[in-house]
Amino acid sequence: MLTFVGLGLYDERSITVEGREAIRDADRVFAEFYTSRLSGTTVDQLAAHHDVGIDVRDRAGVEQHPEEILDAAASGDVVFLTAGDTMISTTHVDLRLRAVDRGIETRVVHGVTAQTAASGLTGLQNYRFGPATTLPFPYAHGADGLPASVTNAIDENRERGLHTVVYLDIKVDRDEYMTADVGAELLAEAYPDVLAVVVARAGSPDPLVEAGRLADLATREFGDPLHLLVIPGECHLLEADALVDLAGADRDALDLA
Amino acid sequence: MLTFVGLGLYDERSITVEGREAIRDADRVFAEFYTSRLSGTTVDQLAAHHDVGIDVRDRAGVEQHPEEILDAAASGDVVFLTAGDTMISTTHVDLRLRAVDRGIETRVVHGVTAQTAASGLTGLQNYRFGPATTLPFPYAHGADGLPASVTNAIDENRERGLHTVVYLDIKVDRDEYMTADVGAELLAEAYPDVLAVVVARAGSPDPLVEAGRLADLATREFGDPLHLLVIPGECHLLEADALVDLAGADRDALDLA
Repeated sequence: MLTFVGLGLYDERSITVEGREAIRDADRVFAEFYTSRLSGTTVDQLAAHHDVGIDVRDRAGVEQHPEEILDAAASGDVVFLTAGDTMISTTHVDLRLRAVDRGIETRVVHGVTAQTAASGLTGLQNYRFGPATTLPFPYAHGADGLPASVTNAIDENRERGLHTVVYLDIKVDRDEYMTADVGAELLAEAYPDVLAVVVARAGSPDPLVEAGRLADLATREFGDPLHLLVIPGECHLLEADALVDLAGADRDALDLA
Repeated sequence: MLTFVGLGLYDERSITVEGREAIRDADRVFAEFYTSRLSGTTVDQLAAHHDVGIDVRDRAGVEQHPEEILDAAASGDVVFLTAGDTMISTTHVDLRLRAVDRGIETRVVHGVTAQTAASGLTGLQNYRFGPATTLPFPYAHGADGLPASVTNAIDENRERGLHTVVYLDIKVDRDEYMTADVGAELLAEAYPDVLAVVVARAGSPDPLVEAGRLADLATREFGDPLHLLVIPGECHLLEADALVDLAGADRDALDLA
C-alpha cells in the first residue's frame, strides 16, 4: 500500500490526525521537499515528533528512480509525505499512477492547501477564485517582463470578476523564496495601481494579511516566508468588509460586485 | 480569543493536530452543522473523542444571536467548529468580523476542503480549476431548468479549458443530500454527452471516483453521501492518464490540451 499524506502548511501539527496515524502505522516513510517545504519545522524534528525515520528523496529520486519507493509499497505499508496537500504536483500523480499500474493499492490523506488558507485568512470566498498562477523568479523565467501565464491568469480572472492567488516562486534546493515585496514589484510593472493582498506565513501561529496597491506593497516588508499574493476581483459586501477589517484595505480601492 | 477550526471532511480524525489541540485547550466549544456535516461521525462521538462538551448552534443561533459566542470569547478561549474548512461560508466571516469589531482576538485553524480532495482524488491539477458552483435541489431553485449560476460557471470554465467542481445541494436540517446520479440527471438536461467525474465520500477511507457521460452517470448509483461532480475542462496528458486509470474514463471522450 502506498499512502500519500499531505503535511499541511507549517509544522508538525499541521498534519491531520488521520495522516499522523498513517505515518505511525507505516513500515517505511519517504518524503520530498523540492516542491515545497514546511517553514516551521525541519525533517529531523518531524522524524523525532512522529518517532519514525524519514527517507527524503530529491526530484530525481522520485521522478526518475521511483523503484525503491514502489518496491517497498508492493511488500509493505509505505507513506509518502509532501508539504501542503499531496496531489497538487504532477510528480505525485505520476508516482500514484505507477503504483496503480503495478497493482499496488494507493490512498490519499489530504492536507490543507495554501489556496484554502488564502481564502480563509482574507475572507475572500472560495467559490469566487479563478485559477491560480505562479510568478517565477526572473532568472527562472529567462525573459524580460512578466510571463504571459501570469498576466493571462490575472487578466482573465479580473474580466470575470474573480480573485487570483499568485504563488511566489520557491527554489527549495537554493533556499530561495520570493517575498511578497519582490513579487509585488514584478507585478507592479503591469499593474501598479491594482489592489493586492499579501498573505504571509499562512497556517502558522502568526499569519500576516495586508492589502495595498502593488506599487506600495513593493516598498514594504512582510517578515519570514512563505508569502503569496491575492489579486481580488469584484468583492461582495462582506468580502470588502473583511479586506478592510482584516487586511487594512482602502474601501474605495475595492471593486464592489 | 475566538478560534475557528475546520474539522475536515469525514470523521474525528479529519481534523489537524493543531485543531485538536485548540479544542482541548478551549474553555468552550461551539459548532454549527447547517452548512455541512461530517458523514463519518456524530456530534456525540466528536464530543466524546475530544472529551469536551460541544454546543451546537443552528443558523439563527450563529447569524442572528451570536452574542453568547462572542461574550464567551471576550472572557475566555472559545473554539467554533465547522465541517470542512472554516471560512468557506460567509456566515463564519461575519462572525469573525463581529469579534474583531469587539476587540476579540481571532485565529483560523484551516481544514481540508472538498475542492482539495476533488483535485487530489481525480488527479486533476489544482491550478486548472475555475470557480466552483453549487447545484440546488429543483424545489430550492424554484424554477424550471438549471440555474444560470450553474450553466454560466460550467460554460465559462469550459471556454477557458478549466475544470469545474459542482457541489451538490445539502439540506442538513432535512437530512437531504443530493446524490451524484440525481445531479448528473439534472445536468444532463443541458450537457448529456459531457464527460463528468463523480467523487463520493471524499476524505473517507473508501472514496469513489468514477467517470462517464452525464446521461450515463444519471443511471448509476454511488453509495453513501457526500457526493460531488467534477466537469473536466482540457486535460494535460497526465490528467488524462489519471482519469483513465483512477476513474475509468474513456480516453476518447476527454478533451486533450
